[in-house]
Amino acid sequence: MNKEGLRKLTYGVYIINTKDSGCVVNTLTQVTNDNVIVAINKENYTNTMLKKYKKFNATVLTQNTDMKVIQTFGFTSSKDTDKYVDFKTERDSNGIKYLKDHMAALIECEVKNEIDLDTHTIFIAKVINTKKLSDEEVMTYDYYHKVKKGVTPPKAPTYEKTKKGYRCPICGYVYEGDTLPDDFVCPICGAPASVFEKID
Amino acid sequence: MNKEGLRKLTYGVYIINTKDSGCVVNTLTQVTNDNVIVAINKENYTNTMLKKYKKFNATVLTQNTDMKVIQTFGFTSSKDTDKYVDFKTERDSNGIKYLKDHMAALIECEVKNEIDLDTHTIFIAKVINTKKLSDEEVMTYDYYHKVKKGVTPPKAPTYEKTKKGYRCPICGYVYEGDTLPDDFVCPICGAPASVFEKID
Repeated sequence: MNKEGLRKLTYGVYIINTKDSGCVVNTLTQVTNDNVIVAINKENYTNTMLKKYKKFNATVLTQNTDMKVIQTFGFTSSKDTDKYVDFKTERDSNGIKYLKDHMAALIECEVKNEIDLDTHTIFIAKVINTKKLSDEEVMTYDYYHKVKKGVTPPKAPTYEKTKKGYRCPICGYVYEGDTLPDDFVCPICGAPASVFEKID
Repeated sequence: MNKEGLRKLTYGVYIINTKDSGCVVNTLTQVTNDNVIVAINKENYTNTMLKKYKKFNATVLTQNTDMKVIQTFGFTSSKDTDKYVDFKTERDSNGIKYLKDHMAALIECEVKNEIDLDTHTIFIAKVINTKKLSDEEVMTYDYYHKVKKGVTPPKAPTYEKTKKGYRCPICGYVYEGDTLPDDFVCPICGAPASVFEKID
């Protein structure tokens, strides 16, 4: 099936924070006056923790967000890393941490319902409160790809295995070329050339 | 509750077309590799028709989309209007019409599941096929508001009754001022001054 048309959909870039874990998503959507949905891959530790804890907050990334934030929250796992340790954090009214710098807004939510959908869980949540954190321009998914040269993580709904070259198995970055230099290091997640997989 | 933070979420602008009806939405979201969700107000005729017909297509509006398209598909009802009559149309593989001009993509879907959520129905749908229709820049919801000076329809999840002045009861446009001139005509939907409601 040709999926080119799906790449024309517009998204923002968000961090979903819950107890002791957080991850980057592009699927946060307001669906009624006070309800949002968010789709999170079942393999994400944040999915597991959210099913247990039922409360989360979302922060809205701005164009000034450091790529290190996306590397950490998009390409490492909260299961074996304290993702928050290198960043300035605050706690919301439920005591859940969030990153303080270069975030446009904080949205606090409580999970009402979960829908199992193949690889992802769709969480339907009630918005409890929101707060503007800055007036910086928000980061769109398109800006992340075009200006920040970001890649799509393998767990994202929009991930596609189409390009030729060598793929980083950790973050999905694709090096387009016939030969991968031995000293190449993944520009997104820092993985060495030795772990890259050839794709045709 | 302060909902200011929700206004920092990023969306595109889409038309959902089903049998004999269509409406503008901002809630189309890819949630897995081949599933999307879309939230549609229960008062929209397109909601009723979609529940019956189970098939739809979505087109992605571009920055060049005529505001008349948004006026027609966002602020009139398919129940008593043939919204397609004034525009060039094509039919998708299911025979469902869509607007041909200034659309970035066509996404054909089949409804798998419906979730009842207060004022809206969330439709979970399988993507059957997609097609790029043009290379024009897509319209974001932010662009629609800031550049096209669009307003939020009362049936949209993001609609808020906050401003002071006079509100158009048809499309939600707010005239900000103490006195509404007798000959004023709503710039969005064409309603006369006589039907405007004072808001404090």
